[in-house]
Amino acid sequence: MEREEALAVVSGGLDSVTLAHLLAEEGYSLHLLSFDYGQRHGKELEYARRCAERLGASFDVVDLSGVGRLLSGSALTDEIEVPHGRYDEESMSVTVVPNRNAIFLSVAYGAAVARGSVLVAAAMHAGDHPVYPDCRPEFVRSFEAMERLAVEGLGHPGLRLYTPFIHKTKAEIVGLGASLGVPFEETWSCYEGGELHCGLCGTCTERREAFELAGVEDPTEYRG
Amino acid sequence: MEREEALAVVSGGLDSVTLAHLLAEEGYSLHLLSFDYGQRHGKELEYARRCAERLGASFDVVDLSGVGRLLSGSALTDEIEVPHGRYDEESMSVTVVPNRNAIFLSVAYGAAVARGSVLVAAAMHAGDHPVYPDCRPEFVRSFEAMERLAVEGLGHPGLRLYTPFIHKTKAEIVGLGASLGVPFEETWSCYEGGELHCGLCGTCTERREAFELAGVEDPTEYRG
Repeated sequence: MEREEALAVVSGGLDSVTLAHLLAEEGYSLHLLSFDYGQRHGKELEYARRCAERLGASFDVVDLSGVGRLLSGSALTDEIEVPHGRYDEESMSVTVVPNRNAIFLSVAYGAAVARGSVLVAAAMHAGDHPVYPDCRPEFVRSFEAMERLAVEGLGHPGLRLYTPFIHKTKAEIVGLGASLGVPFEETWSCYEGGELHCGLCGTCTERREAFELAGVEDPTEYRG
Repeated sequence: MEREEALAVVSGGLDSVTLAHLLAEEGYSLHLLSFDYGQRHGKELEYARRCAERLGASFDVVDLSGVGRLLSGSALTDEIEVPHGRYDEESMSVTVVPNRNAIFLSVAYGAAVARGSVLVAAAMHAGDHPVYPDCRPEFVRSFEAMERLAVEGLGHPGLRLYTPFIHKTKAEIVGLGASLGVPFEETWSCYEGGELHCGLCGTCTERREAFELAGVEDPTEYRG
């Protein structure tokens, strides 16, 4: 019997790469979808590509650079400086790209319908909730309900949204990834997009802490 | 007092151009957003641009051609032949671009948040419901509920989705457009995208009938 296809939104970060490994472990045939929205950490896309190669998945990068330009005001796409420190600080709110997940997931659903995939998977996790409104469980539920109507009668009848990390902390994801054998050195978190992880921005801080809390050795080389 | 901004998704077709004129009449400052998704009737974008110019609106065309390629299987973007005849025939279902409205409206919401617009407007009408699941009132309600969560705390607190034609027939839109002085010859409907309207495809058939039913003179020059 042919395996059912999962379409996963993968940025090349620790969470989404672990998600792809989980889906492979669960027996799905895999299609990975990445988005180029002019993010300054475009380097992560290379890690998404390598993840696809490693798992024998098909892979598309969708050029949304024209969309990125419309969503100005975020430090992830603009010339605004990426703030240092923890995510739960007020300052991290400048890293919000408005409506990013609705945009990415809508495109992913369209592609999933065209491909006949049975699920769209995304790696939002519990640590994202305070800063990003479109990472919360209530957003995910509402989005899935909307899509059930939007593509009714098209695509695979059982098409659903799968967000297995929505109630997990990043430390729990690291623990899961370690058990799945995820090569964490082949993932990229830093918002700065330099040669090495900066070690200081919100996502670097979160990454370091997650390894510590999980008691998993952190293979990442940090600059700061 | 500065006027509030409405962001309207405008294809350059009869419905969305009438929508833009309605919003101008209602006193909004206007931003028009069009999408280039590799549609073969790309000509309509020129009519969207002219509409913006006429109404003194700002205007952006968003390049989604990379997304269009993922949503294959539709006669609007592929080499599949555009079917002739009425919309309610089975054959018109090949003109469905899966999830198109969720994708367009998500991008529009992101842009509206970035711009501080108070509403996102779109021109779905009653005649679209049988063929396009993402033109139905239940989709629109669900989409708006999803976006309320997705952008909570960002953008204008009253941001809403405005679809004034959702229960109107195309003939009623023509009647409204006539009363607003819409120059219908400056709108494009045909899916073929030739020099003149073909007069035979689903949307040309619907256009002709709408003028007849509304008792409004049709300024369109049809080929067939």
